[in-house]
Amino acid sequence: MSERTDDLQRNGLKLIQETERFCFGIDSVLLTGFAAPRIMAGSRVLDLGCGNGVLPVLLSAKTDETLFTGLEIQEEAVSLAEKSVQLNGLTQRIRLIHGDLCAVGDYVSRSSFDVCISNPPYVKAGSGRGYKNRSLLVSRSEEACTFEDVAKAASFSLKRNGRFLFVHRTIRLPEIIKTLMENSLTPREMRLIYPKEDSQSDMFLMNSVKGAGMEMKVLPPLTIYGSDGKYTREVNEIYGI
Amino acid sequence: MSERTDDLQRNGLKLIQETERFCFGIDSVLLTGFAAPRIMAGSRVLDLGCGNGVLPVLLSAKTDETLFTGLEIQEEAVSLAEKSVQLNGLTQRIRLIHGDLCAVGDYVSRSSFDVCISNPPYVKAGSGRGYKNRSLLVSRSEEACTFEDVAKAASFSLKRNGRFLFVHRTIRLPEIIKTLMENSLTPREMRLIYPKEDSQSDMFLMNSVKGAGMEMKVLPPLTIYGSDGKYTREVNEIYGI
Repeated sequence: MSERTDDLQRNGLKLIQETERFCFGIDSVLLTGFAAPRIMAGSRVLDLGCGNGVLPVLLSAKTDETLFTGLEIQEEAVSLAEKSVQLNGLTQRIRLIHGDLCAVGDYVSRSSFDVCISNPPYVKAGSGRGYKNRSLLVSRSEEACTFEDVAKAASFSLKRNGRFLFVHRTIRLPEIIKTLMENSLTPREMRLIYPKEDSQSDMFLMNSVKGAGMEMKVLPPLTIYGSDGKYTREVNEIYGI
Repeated sequence: MSERTDDLQRNGLKLIQETERFCFGIDSVLLTGFAAPRIMAGSRVLDLGCGNGVLPVLLSAKTDETLFTGLEIQEEAVSLAEKSVQLNGLTQRIRLIHGDLCAVGDYVSRSSFDVCISNPPYVKAGSGRGYKNRSLLVSRSEEACTFEDVAKAASFSLKRNGRFLFVHRTIRLPEIIKTLMENSLTPREMRLIYPKEDSQSDMFLMNSVKGAGMEMKVLPPLTIYGSDGKYTREVNEIYGI
């Protein structure tokens, strides 16, 4: 497969991706914009299913003195992430583990992280869509882990009051809220993403807290495209443009 | 207490309210705007906790050949609603029952309604806020019924694929979604209400369906006030202005 090196447009950071595998999209970028102000300086952060490492690499620039652990089941993705971490001189801040988040307790200690982040597979397994290869299948559909597995892994790894920050598809919102609550993760802040001002929401960003009370804030809408068809000012700011 | 007769600004409809009791607000009006296009002609509609009858009176003008049943625990509110129904010549379309929705099976048959609607009490019982009188307490806090009671009553009364349409406070969204799902009511369409474009959502409108699948649509944001501090065009349209 062909590798490419993408400029992340922030602090000179670069990310190595393979064009045939899962490449990061706007959802990952929006998640870093949502997550960064919710990660306190010095936090220990676990990325559940880190893929090629886009979240820790970007968040290392957007947060202070944070230490990241990335857990990923696909060995080739871990190798790519390792290369990006070395290329960016981040070996002191980002540690990568090749492993299955369904067995997260084999790799990390219970209640040892301040924050979990994830850009999980969005689509239910066996939903019939074709994928070009196993890498795309595992990245995009719940072949290797369901959202419930990710929530359980977050609940296991987080300290009390620790945060689980993630992005997901809006059509799955009800079951995701239910799954969070069944795993002691309280939905606390949600931001719905709308492609345009007058369109339905397709994705959402969530901040859930381990063991917190029940009230939830729904933040102002995040709109991707303005009436001119270009990114809104806020999206450009998140991209750092 | 002092009665007043309010013009509902639609088809010459009027509503009798007592100034010391619960008077309808923008939430009821927005719910009628959301509900009307989701109520098919000829539907049988049950209003759970109908208060002074604002929802059936307004919706009788916004829907065709619909028959409403209003169930209300407060006898004085039922009397006011009766007066409004007579004043508007709606006795053939709106039937009122004085009774407790926690015992809904004493008043209506199982699976006999196409639609349930409700503007339920928003605040948990005993939350410490003072209310001027018992009428306001019962209308606004979960003194006489919880949201779970309302959801159970809707689930009992609705036919399969019947709709439960309601408005509630956004801070309670997670538990409300969980309660719906536990009562065979699937959240299908949600619309978040934002006071202003850049503010947090304070209320939401929900269309849940008895026994339907899991996917949910989140509709475009509904913003109340524009940057000029006045109602947005959409809110004026819902009010019929």
